[in-house]
This record gives sequence, structure tokens and C-alpha cells, in this order.
Amino acid sequence: MIPNEITIKSDRIYEGKMIQLRVDTVLLPGEKQATREIVEHPGAVAIVPITEDNKIIMVKQFRKPVESILLEVPAGKIDKDEEPLSCAIRELKEETGYEAKNMQFLFSFYTSPGFSNERIYLYLAKDLIKGKASPDEDEHIEMECIDMDKLVSMVYDGKIKDSKTILAILAAKDLLK
Amino acid sequence: MIPNEITIKSDRIYEGKMIQLRVDTVLLPGEKQATREIVEHPGAVAIVPITEDNKIIMVKQFRKPVESILLEVPAGKIDKDEEPLSCAIRELKEETGYEAKNMQFLFSFYTSPGFSNERIYLYLAKDLIKGKASPDEDEHIEMECIDMDKLVSMVYDGKIKDSKTILAILAAKDLLK
Repeated sequence: MIPNEITIKSDRIYEGKMIQLRVDTVLLPGEKQATREIVEHPGAVAIVPITEDNKIIMVKQFRKPVESILLEVPAGKIDKDEEPLSCAIRELKEETGYEAKNMQFLFSFYTSPGFSNERIYLYLAKDLIKGKASPDEDEHIEMECIDMDKLVSMVYDGKIKDSKTILAILAAKDLLK
Repeated sequence: MIPNEITIKSDRIYEGKMIQLRVDTVLLPGEKQATREIVEHPGAVAIVPITEDNKIIMVKQFRKPVESILLEVPAGKIDKDEEPLSCAIRELKEETGYEAKNMQFLFSFYTSPGFSNERIYLYLAKDLIKGKASPDEDEHIEMECIDMDKLVSMVYDGKIKDSKTILAILAAKDLLK
């Protein structure tokens, strides 16, 4: 039997723009106590926009926490009261300009359940219609269209470093083979 | 050209047991400023221990940030000055009791590069030798050995919710097919 951890105290540490931090004190079996550091996140979506010739529309941006430019699938934070599907449609349009006639929910996942509740909803976007991108004011994004087989090699070569992107590419390959 | 974000101010908010939080003020093109909330993490390893009959040794544990029991591949935080490979050998032994005669590094990835620098090094563990698990005092872990094809269906059925685990299962399926 795996015991649940009952919260006996919860300290709010930081209320930020994107994340909040709290530290919970929990009760473990045998009256033992432990603390859990928890980063609260509003959740996000990620989209695999796939063209008819098996290319994926990717985006590149500078990611401050890792001090590098990462190649990723389009993604973004869910706004307050926004449905994940609406968010996926909005983010795809904002970051790439594309709209999808066919937007299919695949599954959702927690990015770092050891210290955060961030949950990402993953979508496969097909039957794409090209338009004009309109990224947020402080987002600097470049778009790149890359063959799926090439992306899979880039995963194993260590050239793609973002976990949702690796997961999305491997799922797309597995589903569309 | 994607601009780097130059730090002009960095505020330390919280120094925890597992994570630290800081808020950087960065300079964007056009003299614009923005803040970036960054969770510092020591890094971790994840291991796909695969048996000769194509089963993966999985672990189940309660994850406080998401208030649920998750099925995951064995994993753990890298200790100070520890090499990822040593950490992978140690965590596999602690969480499952198994040792691997063949431990192969696959690639590494960032779990949430939008707000954290957490990096996970992924290993494939083969030629397993059974032993006795010895989890940390406040870890309550159950082990389960599950067929790889079953795990892949569980991913698409939404029954596996941890991103490193989904990524690891899809990579193992792709590499070992």
C-alpha cells in the first residue's frame, strides 16, 4: 500500500506572474513528517502541427532558465478559464500563423511531478492552413519546418533538448507510422 | 536572429532542500525589460530497466504536487558532485534492487525549460540482476514489472501521466523494435 501524504501545514512562499511556490509539511506513516516544495503552474498545451509531407512545424526561442535557444513544438501557457483546446488553437496561430482543420487531443502529462503540478495537454494538428504569426510582445520566436525522420535523429543525437518536444516527436512517429 | 536575454538583476527568492527560486530581470531588444521566474534544480536521472522478455521495471509512488500515485520509470535527483551514470546505478539499485550489467546513456532533456533548469539524463538498463531494494526513509515505493506493449497502450489511454516516463517508454519502443 502506498500511503497518501496528508498536508498538516502549507506555507505560501512566492506568488509570481507565471508560477507560485509553496512548501507543504506532510504526515508520513509512523507519524513521521516531511516537507514538499511545490511549484504551482497554470498548465500548458503543446501542439504537433504536421504537414501533408510529414514535416513538423517547429519553433525556436531563447529559454532563460537554461540559457540557450531551444527547438520545440509550439506550446504555451493556458490562460485563466481557458479550455486546453482553445488554448492549443490560439497558441498554434500566435506562434506559427497556422490554423488546423483537424486538431486531435492525444493525452496530457505532468512535466515534473516531483516538484511541480504543471500539466501539458498534447494535440496533433493536421490539415493546416497557412497564415500570419503574431507572437506575444516579449516573445522572439523563429519558425522552422523539419522532416519527421530528421527530428527523430535529432532526438537521439541530443540536438532536441526539450522533454515535451521529444515526447511529442516520438508519439507522432509512433502514431503516424 | 533570436536575441539572448541579458540578466540585469537577479533576486534570490527561496533556497530549499530540493529547489531554489530566483527572479531575473532581463533586457530584451529595444531596451525593453521583462522578468523571468526560474526554479533551479540539481538535475536527475531516469532509467528504463528492460528485462529479456521485453518488460520494463516500473515504480509507483505518491507525488504530492499532483496529489496522486504515479506509475513511473525509476528516477532520482543527482547528489552534489555525483556523475549522472553513478546516480543512475545508485537509483536503480535503491528503488528496484536491480543492478544492470549494461547501462547505456540515451540522451538528456530539460523537463520544463520555460521556468526551470531541471535536466534529466536518460539511461537504458539491460542484462539485469535481481537484488533487494533500499528506498530512502521517506520514500514509499512499489515496484511493478509491465510488458512494453502494454505500457505503450497505457500512454495513449492516459494511464501514464509522467512526462519522463512517457518519453522513456516511447524511446525504448522505438529503439528496441
